[in-house]
Amino acid sequence: MMHNFYSVKDVQSVPDLVQAAISLKNNTSDSQVGAGKTAVLLFFNPSLRTRLSTQKAAQSLGMHVITLNASEAWKWEMTPNAIMNADKAEHIIDAAKVISQYADVIGIRAFASLENAAKDYEDQLLQTFIQYAEVPVVNLESSILHPCQSLADLITIAEHQTKSKNKIVVSWAPHPKALPQAVTNSFLEWITHTTDNEVTITHPPGYELAERFTAGCKIQHDQAKAFEEADFVYVKNWSSYKDYGKVLSTAPSWTIDQQLMDRTNQAKIMHCLPIRRNVIITDEVLDGPQSLVYKQAENRTHAAKVVLKQLLANG
Amino acid sequence: MMHNFYSVKDVQSVPDLVQAAISLKNNTSDSQVGAGKTAVLLFFNPSLRTRLSTQKAAQSLGMHVITLNASEAWKWEMTPNAIMNADKAEHIIDAAKVISQYADVIGIRAFASLENAAKDYEDQLLQTFIQYAEVPVVNLESSILHPCQSLADLITIAEHQTKSKNKIVVSWAPHPKALPQAVTNSFLEWITHTTDNEVTITHPPGYELAERFTAGCKIQHDQAKAFEEADFVYVKNWSSYKDYGKVLSTAPSWTIDQQLMDRTNQAKIMHCLPIRRNVIITDEVLDGPQSLVYKQAENRTHAAKVVLKQLLANG
Amino acid sequence: MMHNFYSVKDVQSVPDLVQAAISLKNNTSDSQVGAGKTAVLLFFNPSLRTRLSTQKAAQSLGMHVITLNASEAWKWEMTPNAIMNADKAEHIIDAAKVISQYADVIGIRAFASLENAAKDYEDQLLQTFIQYAEVPVVNLESSILHPCQSLADLITIAEHQTKSKNKIVVSWAPHPKALPQAVTNSFLEWITHTTDNEVTITHPPGYELAERFTAGCKIQHDQAKAFEEADFVYVKNWSSYKDYGKVLSTAPSWTIDQQLMDRTNQAKIMHCLPIRRNVIITDEVLDGPQSLVYKQAENRTHAAKVVLKQLLANG
Repeated sequence: MMHNFYSVKDVQSVPDLVQAAISLKNNTSDSQVGAGKTAVLLFFNPSLRTRLSTQKAAQSLGMHVITLNASEAWKWEMTPNAIMNADKAEHIIDAAKVISQYADVIGIRAFASLENAAKDYEDQLLQTFIQYAEVPVVNLESSILHPCQSLADLITIAEHQTKSKNKIVVSWAPHPKALPQAVTNSFLEWITHTTDNEVTITHPPGYELAERFTAGCKIQHDQAKAFEEADFVYVKNWSSYKDYGKVLSTAPSWTIDQQLMDRTNQAKIMHCLPIRRNVIITDEVLDGPQSLVYKQAENRTHAAKVVLKQLLANG
Repeated sequence: MMHNFYSVKDVQSVPDLVQAAISLKNNTSDSQVGAGKTAVLLFFNPSLRTRLSTQKAAQSLGMHVITLNASEAWKWEMTPNAIMNADKAEHIIDAAKVISQYADVIGIRAFASLENAAKDYEDQLLQTFIQYAEVPVVNLESSILHPCQSLADLITIAEHQTKSKNKIVVSWAPHPKALPQAVTNSFLEWITHTTDNEVTITHPPGYELAERFTAGCKIQHDQAKAFEEADFVYVKNWSSYKDYGKVLSTAPSWTIDQQLMDRTNQAKIMHCLPIRRNVIITDEVLDGPQSLVYKQAENRTHAAKVVLKQLLANG
Repeated sequence: MMHNFYSVKDVQSVPDLVQAAISLKNNTSDSQVGAGKTAVLLFFNPSLRTRLSTQKAAQSLGMHVITLNASEAWKWEMTPNAIMNADKAEHIIDAAKVISQYADVIGIRAFASLENAAKDYEDQLLQTFIQYAEVPVVNLESSILHPCQSLADLITIAEHQTKSKNKIVVSWAPHPKALPQAVTNSFLEWITHTTDNEVTITHPPGYELAERFTAGCKIQHDQAKAFEEADFVYVKNWSSYKDYGKVLSTAPSWTIDQQLMDRTNQAKIMHCLPIRRNVIITDEVLDGPQSLVYKQAENRTHAAKVVLKQLLANG
């Protein structure tokens, strides 16, 4: 029984959840488990896939959906016991309790600030909602995790793998801006805690992720070597965790091109999108037959649907 | 028969409306009086409770809901017969007539500017919509009134009172910013015109509200004295009406704490939210057993639902 | 069979489409051809009528609707094969393919920049979506066309004409700001390609529209003369096409007043709204019996409904 969907730890059996999502995807008759229920989706940050797929999933279960941009409501005070005489009009504790009066499920997107690792890694906004909300909370990408994406990624791998044990390479790629580590952290958490795949991470020195997410993975700083025999390549930029939030390199040699892909075992290539074309991956690879990026996007709906269905089933 | 929901004057019998809301709240089978009908909700200002509860209420009646932030449409000209050669692209008269082509009910939130009392108290935006719209208009908080909140407040009092005649204290509390008088005006209008409760208002000198709203109420500048024997305390900040829109005091002595509450007849404490914790009310009181604030928030849905139902029943 | 709704060229028979819209309008039992389907509506610009009418139309067909402001998602790169190392986070090609994973129909509003005629007249954003989206695309006003408005205009003319061959005058009117040519272009395209009406365009010298839209129309620079014997006057401001995006005149003599209307054959007057009152048309005319502007607004719903219905019927 799932109470919230914050991280992989909320899931009893990931293989079962992946299979349930695939069953739901292939079942054309929509379940109406959500009839008369309301999902409130809060966005503190831009969103395309998450916003659309979660709405679509909820509506396909019969739910009403209310989206709310943080800018449409009041500024939230985050500090417990604050004397609120400055610019913040509403305490997050009250927001969590109040939204619970209207929602049967609450989804929240709140990115990392990338200013303070300790603070970001506490993931306070999501954790406070989980503590005070009276209904299930779904992580629509927090400071450090993006489980809806990870579940969609695992569904996509399950649909495209040709064997049960794969070599999965997680490759850093360059990006002009500092990005959070959430997608990669989350993918590692899901893939390593749940399958017998072999995971190799490749990145320039200085881009080591938090150890709690890389435990059990091989680290290989030579990208070309890492790609050898790969069955799946999961590419993503992230800013430095050690030198927190910094861009240490934008070296174009790390951009994934066909030459690099040719070193793999005809690997499928994956990315969560949005993607900087010809910076992360070349057009040739992204638009080629090895790319699964649109399948991942499609599976966001099915991931969200199975999660919402299981959370509602508890209600 | 209700044509609009602008103020308590639109309501034939407030006790009947409160009871109808409570019946609807306890009736788990949703009425579908709104099937195939559309509510358009316009927001000129931030909103959490109003935005979510009105959407939820409309959807629970089977309505489609379209929310529209003022910033998503065109700037509105408010002056009748204006020669529109400046920055305003659409006249409010046209907006009212046009939105009527798409909506079966129109809800509008438009706060006071707090710059000009005479202008704010004309409540031009709402009044123009009521005049020109071809469908019912719901006040989602105007310059001077917030009837959806007041109805929810009265539902909450009805659910928690233990006798028919209560001492109700309306207490001003400090706030760092200048706030409108709408919530307090409206609460006074609803509570004094409709029940045999005794109402005492307490505030520092200079915070007298418009006389049309305080007629029949006692004014007691000594907050501690006002609280004696209170059954309900309704706390709210408002900026000065006489010295219009000004913050005359932020004296922390007016913050409501447990010591003050202990002077009451085990009063329940109410606030519309959002609330500045430890400025308006201490955490101890707000999170304690005397607080009804989340019940009020919950009842916003039931207030909106009974209002929408009655407005649609006329159509 | 209609694949997209970008321009009049997507329509097999405009008279048939107009009649189908009128039938649908008079048919109170809503078709549920959209049940379980999703419309995603993207807005790069302000919208009132388009936003509300398209939502209402889609919902009346049983569809779920997801609106998305461009500002709520990522900035889009428009250049093919760009090396995306600057400020744009997502390529429009990926956006088109991704949104197709969640939508059964995609509507897009993206106005002209009015900086570069050649670029605007390529209508790149809409054309790229039509090329890469895997579902039908609806033009909710592009750089150069506004077919949903034009269809609503033709429905309105069909409902109010008293003979089959009318004199239709398209009159320029002054406006303080530079506006796109889309509404007028589109109206001309629809009215000239589809009926045996006689079309006269009147505007000050320098306001000639692109020749591909004015072919077959008379040009008459004398507004008073143009209005003689008119059965319908379609008034609209547009900025210069030749001196691209420039305001060459704001002469109030071009404002349409009752004296000018009295020269017509009791013509009906039309405008797409929003309208600058007493700049484009005087209050007297706009609020008088010859005005059809609110009928046009109402017909936006019916236009959108017939378009969505036909696009879904192909699916």
